[in-house]
Amino acid sequence: MNLILLHPSDLDHQGHACITDARRLAHLRDIHRAALGDRLTVGVQGGLMGKAQLVELTTELAVFALDPLADVPPPALPVHLVLALPRPRMLARTLEHVTALGVKEITLLHTKRVEKSYWQSPELLPEKIHQHLVLGLEQSRDTQLPSVTLTKGFRPFLEEQLPALLRGRRGLVAHPGMPMACPRGISDNTLLLVGPEGGFIPWEVEKLLDAGCEGMHLGPRILRVETAVTALLSRLF
Amino acid sequence: MNLILLHPSDLDHQGHACITDARRLAHLRDIHRAALGDRLTVGVQGGLMGKAQLVELTTELAVFALDPLADVPPPALPVHLVLALPRPRMLARTLEHVTALGVKEITLLHTKRVEKSYWQSPELLPEKIHQHLVLGLEQSRDTQLPSVTLTKGFRPFLEEQLPALLRGRRGLVAHPGMPMACPRGISDNTLLLVGPEGGFIPWEVEKLLDAGCEGMHLGPRILRVETAVTALLSRLF
Repeated sequence: MNLILLHPSDLDHQGHACITDARRLAHLRDIHRAALGDRLTVGVQGGLMGKAQLVELTTELAVFALDPLADVPPPALPVHLVLALPRPRMLARTLEHVTALGVKEITLLHTKRVEKSYWQSPELLPEKIHQHLVLGLEQSRDTQLPSVTLTKGFRPFLEEQLPALLRGRRGLVAHPGMPMACPRGISDNTLLLVGPEGGFIPWEVEKLLDAGCEGMHLGPRILRVETAVTALLSRLF
Repeated sequence: MNLILLHPSDLDHQGHACITDARRLAHLRDIHRAALGDRLTVGVQGGLMGKAQLVELTTELAVFALDPLADVPPPALPVHLVLALPRPRMLARTLEHVTALGVKEITLLHTKRVEKSYWQSPELLPEKIHQHLVLGLEQSRDTQLPSVTLTKGFRPFLEEQLPALLRGRRGLVAHPGMPMACPRGISDNTLLLVGPEGGFIPWEVEKLLDAGCEGMHLGPRILRVETAVTALLSRLF
């Protein structure tokens, strides 16, 4: 928690913020070992960041006196990430990684090689997803929550969502064996599509290429989804 | 386990390999759902890779008949990674990530902001480290084990190891606030130094720069060590 992310409802009108949830209080106590008078970095969800002084700390609440907040959050990556739904534990970590890296638009997609049971995981509950996004923001000192869309059908994605997503965006499908290596340091608005463990099936790749995406590879090594996504984002942008 | 990594002692002289450990047997059964006659990708630790046919499978053992092995493992990254010792769970995952990415030389280093207790973790036992390296190789279809060195003092590292490590290598210290952005797509032999959560202290950075390293940053976002290391390796090479 390099940033204490405040919800607008944590704020009063006198420049104070009060947090009462166990997770942030425990973090303040155990990790920050915060004491009265400490100045910590805070940010308001969707808004600005700055410093705040801890003016009250009990087992039930922490109150901060906020400086006028003036710092803008770091820039977002120009990417909409379409990720075949990973298995639940991998999903949790991947959401944290990509949020920390600055991704703001995420679609979780069903593809042939996604196990259907993954869609039943409690990790997909909105409050669980929200939790991982918040951890990513707190890690990277950002206040802008990503939006996450769940798309349970590949064909509806292809027919109903993909054409709009590709308008004004360069579509890149990460897939082993494609002739083009992952481009480096681009600034294009990008739609990045990443398959599941085991990859997209050939038909899916064909359809994505037909729709106007470019295929690309990340080298001969097979990486876990969480490693691959971080590696792709870091190389691309 | 995209590769079944065989130890030379798993092999007989008739082109068969026999595995008996619970981990690989469980993986064959539960993840590969392997059946007699299946052809799987195998590799011999430190050697070549190829295909093998499963010819016997019981609860106690699996026997493979190996094709003549002819595939060389994927190329290594030209990097020696010096990593301030992360907390134990982060270490485990980071070792897997960097091994999968192709790092072959790793030094785990004590720095001021590394908690001393981390050095007592069972994750540092040679057999535990070995386990994570093997998982990384199995993931990325590689057979060349990285070497891992533990260096519990920063000053001895600086005085006794660093000069030799920098001979023939470009030293790069990842540190927030450095003026140079992380270079992209280099092919230099590189010594990459990455600090702990909280970073190197200014004195450490100064000493590393004095010794001939270049400082560089990865942007304004604060990343977890495992995310940062993957992002650095993918952007650099």
